[in-house]
Amino acid sequence: MRVLGVDPGLTRCGLGVVDGLPGRRARLVAVGVARSEVGLDVDQRLLAIERQIEEWIEEHGPDAVAVERVFAQQNVSTVMGTAQVAGLAMVAAARRRIPVALHTPSEVKAAVTGNGRADKAQVQTMVARLLSLDELPKPADAADALALAVCHLWRPAGALGAPQRAPGSLTSAQRAWAAAEQAARRRG
Amino acid sequence: MRVLGVDPGLTRCGLGVVDGLPGRRARLVAVGVARSEVGLDVDQRLLAIERQIEEWIEEHGPDAVAVERVFAQQNVSTVMGTAQVAGLAMVAAARRRIPVALHTPSEVKAAVTGNGRADKAQVQTMVARLLSLDELPKPADAADALALAVCHLWRPAGALGAPQRAPGSLTSAQRAWAAAEQAARRRG
Repeated sequence: MRVLGVDPGLTRCGLGVVDGLPGRRARLVAVGVARSEVGLDVDQRLLAIERQIEEWIEEHGPDAVAVERVFAQQNVSTVMGTAQVAGLAMVAAARRRIPVALHTPSEVKAAVTGNGRADKAQVQTMVARLLSLDELPKPADAADALALAVCHLWRPAGALGAPQRAPGSLTSAQRAWAAAEQAARRRG
Repeated sequence: MRVLGVDPGLTRCGLGVVDGLPGRRARLVAVGVARSEVGLDVDQRLLAIERQIEEWIEEHGPDAVAVERVFAQQNVSTVMGTAQVAGLAMVAAARRRIPVALHTPSEVKAAVTGNGRADKAQVQTMVARLLSLDELPKPADAADALALAVCHLWRPAGALGAPQRAPGSLTSAQRAWAAAEQAARRRG
């Protein structure tokens, strides 16, 4: 299972591709940042970001796209652009019939650190550890995109887009499902 | 000059196409509402709205797309979807190299009623009057889309996306420009 995580933003949009299965070690495929020039009009900036997201989807062929859920209460000066980029990422996936999931920042933090209120440094550290990276992923947007992808890989059975639980809180049924899926993959 | 006005919304997105020139009577070309099913996932709803906006652009071939500028302070329960639809409309135009302009609700109200705080009924009444319609355009989203298009047609010289003034507040230079453009069009 390959997941593209998208940490939406108009100036910097984090993108991270991770392969894995629930309960198994995840593997880094690609990480980077889509950017747009601050001086351009918004429509041109959105178009530039959309094209970069589409290139990532075409190049890496994810089975799912996990996008950070944006809330109206976030940083007011940037939230509109952030929401618009999140929308573009969702539609870029939907156009290609790729399932889309939204995860909240606290779900993502809880998934990779065990603490829904972890700071950015802690998320970066854990992403590096979980993906066996030699260096911390930078910038923070890129680390967040990887964390989103890992969070999505580790979601409970059938919970595409549903409330996320940290891996440690999987029920026995969820663990059984994950094991069955892994076995099916090995047989396939 | 043909303008597509977009009053963004995830449940109902107003669409209005108007032909005209600054200072000249505007003519209604088409008006309607793009809709998405409330029960669908957000990515599918955004995709449905995007497709309807693209159909309108393909069918009517506007010279410009005027989109209502969305603010973070607007209705918190719907503002994310509204912002995302606004972003999709902008990118749908930008992909086709059609100029995009953003106008604030108060700019639009001032353009068609002379009062930036006019209510919806007043906007509907004035849109019907300005476009010589026999009936009020309904729903309000459709009227707002037409008002956006009219507002954009009547913008001051060179002010694509720049702060909008009501027609009555045009400077003499702006009036001269409008007259010159009209004359050039007649000659053309």
